[in-house]
Amino acid sequence: MSYKICFIGAGNLATHLSLALQATGNEISQVYSRTLQSAKELASKLNCSFTNATGEIHTEPDIYFVALTDSAVNEVLSKISFNNKLVVHCSGSLGINILDNYSRQTGVFYPLQTFSKNRAINFKNIPVFIEANSPKTENILLNLGKTISNSVSVLNTEKRKYLHIAAVFACNFTNHMYTIANELLKEKDIPFEVLRPLIFETASRVQEMVPKDAQTGPAVRFDKNIIDFHLNELKRTGNYSELYNSISKCIFEYHKK
Amino acid sequence: MSYKICFIGAGNLATHLSLALQATGNEISQVYSRTLQSAKELASKLNCSFTNATGEIHTEPDIYFVALTDSAVNEVLSKISFNNKLVVHCSGSLGINILDNYSRQTGVFYPLQTFSKNRAINFKNIPVFIEANSPKTENILLNLGKTISNSVSVLNTEKRKYLHIAAVFACNFTNHMYTIANELLKEKDIPFEVLRPLIFETASRVQEMVPKDAQTGPAVRFDKNIIDFHLNELKRTGNYSELYNSISKCIFEYHKK
Repeated sequence: MSYKICFIGAGNLATHLSLALQATGNEISQVYSRTLQSAKELASKLNCSFTNATGEIHTEPDIYFVALTDSAVNEVLSKISFNNKLVVHCSGSLGINILDNYSRQTGVFYPLQTFSKNRAINFKNIPVFIEANSPKTENILLNLGKTISNSVSVLNTEKRKYLHIAAVFACNFTNHMYTIANELLKEKDIPFEVLRPLIFETASRVQEMVPKDAQTGPAVRFDKNIIDFHLNELKRTGNYSELYNSISKCIFEYHKK
Repeated sequence: MSYKICFIGAGNLATHLSLALQATGNEISQVYSRTLQSAKELASKLNCSFTNATGEIHTEPDIYFVALTDSAVNEVLSKISFNNKLVVHCSGSLGINILDNYSRQTGVFYPLQTFSKNRAINFKNIPVFIEANSPKTENILLNLGKTISNSVSVLNTEKRKYLHIAAVFACNFTNHMYTIANELLKEKDIPFEVLRPLIFETASRVQEMVPKDAQTGPAVRFDKNIIDFHLNELKRTGNYSELYNSISKCIFEYHKK
């Protein structure tokens, strides 16, 4: 079963998801974005039409995929007539019921991954979480998900929101730890590349182990000498001593249990 | 050039480093550990002798590798006679001069990686940082390093200590972010494995990009709605709201520059 799909949004997620859905035989008929240039860029990759005018959004698609910044969803959708076609959003933190005002057929299609436009990604390995307001729609989205991913499951709004918080720690906060590490190295003219094998191994370990068992370093050993030395160095030269202290305490409290 | 080497310490680092040095043709003649069982375990992998008595440490090795917990170094080394042979420690945070009391030939051999005994690791990709108290010793350690790693360079104590702080952020703190994510998922009975592709991709991105450019998520967008929602959820159910708040603020402050 393949579908005619319109994408509302043309950002990183929309780019990767629309290309993956097209590659498995669906027709992406149109891309809408508030920014004409963004709509045009993605449409040229998909070889489809594009618009930045809500009034020009086609009425014949089977499914509308909404891949907008959360805060823009209501503003954009309130200007579009969906004629009760299936409307699906891709957000971790928005409930399914935000779509109730716009159609009788609604769903959520949440791929748990971090996307950059110019970085290739294999959708097969990305877990996709589905929610729908009817068993029929749930089935449609599960089957559609399975064409692009090996891991598709149903998850309700409450759990999905929590999953999103966990993802913020596992991805966004983790990346900021890399950023801080890079800032510290810059002060001593050490190139970031020396940390890359360590970063890669840290992530690789937990592909097999649970992170609790993979914890190493001064905080889990409660090596007060090193912790105090690090805190003094950070206080002397920069802004990261408080964060170092809070995370070290958190590690210690967690592991002393 | 190959060497006869004695290992003082039999932990994770000692295990991987001694096996790598043996695999490139050096002779590991003896392992010392304060715990006889640890010494025995590593010695059986290396097929060499072992002891937990400082008085039984051999006098004929060319190099003594000290791979002990930082806080144990002085206590153990003060009981050993090195006869001014080359003594090398493997710590990120100890200065080279901690060895001055024990030999006239001293050095540091610091592999920047996180090790677990039972996890195979390819030493070729691990950056090794060398320091020595003479050009001759520096040369010995550089050449020895190059037999096991493709990335060997000289780094002084001051910079190495800073590198260690950066590594704590990039590895230990990152792993704790994974742990917190896992704790959050447990509350909703979601298995940790759904986060593995995200964690792996987050680390893979910065193998090519710098982390500043790889940052995504609500904090860098300053999406106050989501941040507040996450903070409220965390306050309601657990202990991680303060950490969420501090790291989000840190991300925002950094990226608004």
